[in-house]
Amino acid sequence: MSKQKIRIIPLGGLGEVGKNMTVVEWGNDAIIIDTGVMFPANDMLGVDLIIPDFRYLLERKDLTIHGILYTHGHEDHTGAAAYVVDALRGIPLYATPLTAALLEVKLRDARLTDATTINVFKPGDTLKVGPFKVESFHMTHSIPDCVGFGITTPFGIIVHSGDYKFDNTPIDGKKPDYAKLGEFAKRGVLLFMGDSTNAEKPGWTPSESVVNDAFDDIFRQAKDRIIVATFASHLSRIQQIADFAARYNRKLAIAGHSMTENVKTARRIGILNIPDERLVELGQINSIPPHELVIMATGSQGEPSAVLGRLATGQHRSLDVMAGDTIVVSAHTIPGNEETVSRTINKLFQRGADVIYDPLAPVHVSGHGSQEEMKLLISLLNPRFFLPIHGELRHLRAHKKLGMQLGIPEKNIFVVENGHVLEIDKHGMRVGERVPGGYVFVDGSGVGDVGRAVMRDREVLARDGFLMVVVNVDSDTGEVLGDPEIISRGFIYLRDADELIDGVKRTVHDVLLNTRQARNGKRRERLQESLSRMLYNETKRRPMIFSVINEN
Amino acid sequence: MSKQKIRIIPLGGLGEVGKNMTVVEWGNDAIIIDTGVMFPANDMLGVDLIIPDFRYLLERKDLTIHGILYTHGHEDHTGAAAYVVDALRGIPLYATPLTAALLEVKLRDARLTDATTINVFKPGDTLKVGPFKVESFHMTHSIPDCVGFGITTPFGIIVHSGDYKFDNTPIDGKKPDYAKLGEFAKRGVLLFMGDSTNAEKPGWTPSESVVNDAFDDIFRQAKDRIIVATFASHLSRIQQIADFAARYNRKLAIAGHSMTENVKTARRIGILNIPDERLVELGQINSIPPHELVIMATGSQGEPSAVLGRLATGQHRSLDVMAGDTIVVSAHTIPGNEETVSRTINKLFQRGADVIYDPLAPVHVSGHGSQEEMKLLISLLNPRFFLPIHGELRHLRAHKKLGMQLGIPEKNIFVVENGHVLEIDKHGMRVGERVPGGYVFVDGSGVGDVGRAVMRDREVLARDGFLMVVVNVDSDTGEVLGDPEIISRGFIYLRDADELIDGVKRTVHDVLLNTRQARNGKRRERLQESLSRMLYNETKRRPMIFSVINEN
Repeated sequence: MSKQKIRIIPLGGLGEVGKNMTVVEWGNDAIIIDTGVMFPANDMLGVDLIIPDFRYLLERKDLTIHGILYTHGHEDHTGAAAYVVDALRGIPLYATPLTAALLEVKLRDARLTDATTINVFKPGDTLKVGPFKVESFHMTHSIPDCVGFGITTPFGIIVHSGDYKFDNTPIDGKKPDYAKLGEFAKRGVLLFMGDSTNAEKPGWTPSESVVNDAFDDIFRQAKDRIIVATFASHLSRIQQIADFAARYNRKLAIAGHSMTENVKTARRIGILNIPDERLVELGQINSIPPHELVIMATGSQGEPSAVLGRLATGQHRSLDVMAGDTIVVSAHTIPGNEETVSRTINKLFQRGADVIYDPLAPVHVSGHGSQEEMKLLISLLNPRFFLPIHGELRHLRAHKKLGMQLGIPEKNIFVVENGHVLEIDKHGMRVGERVPGGYVFVDGSGVGDVGRAVMRDREVLARDGFLMVVVNVDSDTGEVLGDPEIISRGFIYLRDADELIDGVKRTVHDVLLNTRQARNGKRRERLQESLSRMLYNETKRRPMIFSVINEN
Repeated sequence: MSKQKIRIIPLGGLGEVGKNMTVVEWGNDAIIIDTGVMFPANDMLGVDLIIPDFRYLLERKDLTIHGILYTHGHEDHTGAAAYVVDALRGIPLYATPLTAALLEVKLRDARLTDATTINVFKPGDTLKVGPFKVESFHMTHSIPDCVGFGITTPFGIIVHSGDYKFDNTPIDGKKPDYAKLGEFAKRGVLLFMGDSTNAEKPGWTPSESVVNDAFDDIFRQAKDRIIVATFASHLSRIQQIADFAARYNRKLAIAGHSMTENVKTARRIGILNIPDERLVELGQINSIPPHELVIMATGSQGEPSAVLGRLATGQHRSLDVMAGDTIVVSAHTIPGNEETVSRTINKLFQRGADVIYDPLAPVHVSGHGSQEEMKLLISLLNPRFFLPIHGELRHLRAHKKLGMQLGIPEKNIFVVENGHVLEIDKHGMRVGERVPGGYVFVDGSGVGDVGRAVMRDREVLARDGFLMVVVNVDSDTGEVLGDPEIISRGFIYLRDADELIDGVKRTVHDVLLNTRQARNGKRRERLQESLSRMLYNETKRRPMIFSVINEN
């Protein structure tokens, strides 16, 4: 590829563009920004995870990838690290201390520690990655140690916002790096790639500190235990609750594997400041009076196997809801999870807890900037070109509208989908070819082996189940020997369906009688058609039908 | 049952209490309020509808049910009419003109016109239903002809709000019946049963008229066609759009079977005021310039088979998205539908339309009152007892809090679940026995035949599919004859899984060799266990495993 061209390729994401992974190429040199996962939509049956389709990188044998740079430690930006490192061995990672520590755990779990090295940098550091000069700058979000990147190219600076909001009173006191943003603007920003998550939300997103007031009320009023559920990665919330625990003289217990691990990691590297004497093991909480205890827990999305979900159904090993508990759901509900979150809240009420959640009290704020913050960032940077990223098409379009309001010409704003290659040269910027850039299903240990066909079958099975008959026939006369064996699941409760089973048997008998002369394949086909028709007439359902005709 | 007691029993609803159906008994006499349906949650696989479990009524042979009274024509209050009428023949229905017309269609479709009679009343009419005196009163909501009921009992008046908000500038000009509410208060309200839907929302719900401004902007700015999607039953929105069509000189077409039917019905009885010359058939829209056309369509919930869903995927028979189209999604997204609605919006953008939706513009307002309206209604009625209804436990709890703020003693507020019997006598009100009061799945033509077992099987099939082997063995030696037949769906794409299939064959061979002496059932069990273990080791998935061993 020509050294006279920069190419930018957003990859992965479930409808969200450039959320999980972005490639920046300069000739045959490249860097990658983030390697995240998405969680499957409700209708992606049986899928555990979605990772970016990075086939393109495997096929570009001529490309030298000099490093993977991470903006922050959330799963949608780091969760696919093991898959990418495994496929592209030897490429060094670059991350801030917290992000690096979280990546380390992932690589260790996947036994890939030897497959790469992690270079730790501090927000504000300038990195030399192959021929790329990359200036990191601190941005505020809902996890500490969050950065954006300014990448110097022959045609100007490309600024990638990472996930951000402008929080001037962040929990850890570390403000956005306005100075660096101003400096970029002074040097001239060629392209701005900006987080579009909240582009439909007017106004400003409140500071993380705003939830302090809500929690102060809760800690003041709660007579017994307080249980706070949030994301395992939401370390600033965990720090906040630890601070309240200290102020109100409560011990803090952590429930949930991923949160326990994250707290351990973050305390080790000094990101979380919780003294040993504040913490108590979950196994020991029964020795502490309820009003002297606060428990941080996973499960804020209503996941049935996380702590809050298990509390709701009474299935946690060592924890039970007690009358008098105040349970706080301190997290944004990810679209698609509304039903399970609501169900969890209802069940916790049923078990006697008082449940507090947004909108009953402002116990959570978004980690992403709203429209006014987006306008501020665009205004601060004053870019020539604008590429809205991190959002579905609807959000990118809304972000684009903001850019136009601020005077960026419509032709200089690019709303694209994953896999679209954006080309920049001395003449300007344009949309080039399209490469595979979607997502790949991870199901169990299989990556990409569950495709459309399997998914369609799962949909049919989920809707109406299946029915199979195995029947023995005399190979000479073609006549049925004995009763057919009927196996069915997900269709109808067979024990209560004697009439229907009689109908199946009758159909088997009739069809096989009428097709005595036909070959086995033909008989099978006819049998399945007849069964399907009969069952639809009787039940208005369309189970999958299978048959095996054994000739004896 | 004693004449000295009133019993109230909320039935049905998916977590929502008393939403779909409520029974009011006085001794052995009873009336029913509403017979609605719910739509299944995302994890209720294959279920078409949920109807109230009204087994209780079938079992109470001593009970005389004098009538079914309807509050309004929405599906969650009328949708189960055919099921209830079919089971409880001969009980007359009572409904306002629009609701009656919509019920008529349902009964006709189910060929049940002869099974009941519909008594049409006007909002404000007093009904004599058996020994019950029921005073209807008009309330505003998002459909015309909406009422609540005041039921006189020996112990005082029971007021049922129906679905309501206090809209003082409703589209049809018909305000809430404040006079009747005041009169009830003067006579003394024993019990208030109130809609809790928006109990978590502070403030007032805006009037339906508020969306006028948003639509005025849209009609003024749209250069080509306007397509407005809303609920088929949202007749006030349809009237609004028809009025705008007249003002801006556009023809109006209706797309979608249910909406077309509803418009026909509502125009016939004079509820919708749209002159013939305003309307145009969908088949004729191509003869009309795009800027002179507005189309009302179904599919505001992203349902793939409704009009908007088909437009998004390019699968509508007679309608296609054209660049320049302005598409308005003018409906609240029902919890659980967020993913499909968002996907639909993204796809419509992709096809070149400009899509407008809440929160981009206020093109929809809730039909349910917010906290201040709830406080107003409670204050207007000043009831002795309070039963929050129409909401999940979380909403009932929030409504209860409002009641307490207004001075109703906590012991006089009853938060219950469906099937709980509330008893009122001269001593007061209490929670009595519990009767079956949940919901029943409707799947195809089956009502209640899909239970937990079938649903669990569907979940497993949806997650990992199934694999079945059919193998022939020599009945004398027990040895395998030929290759086993392998059938699998939803598990893995078999054509790309040669190794796995070889593993299955090997396992079949090994197990059957080792179990030659065992009886068939035992061999089958062992085979299934071994296959399950082998497949989990290889894929980390757990498909259902079946086997048939034919002895020849």
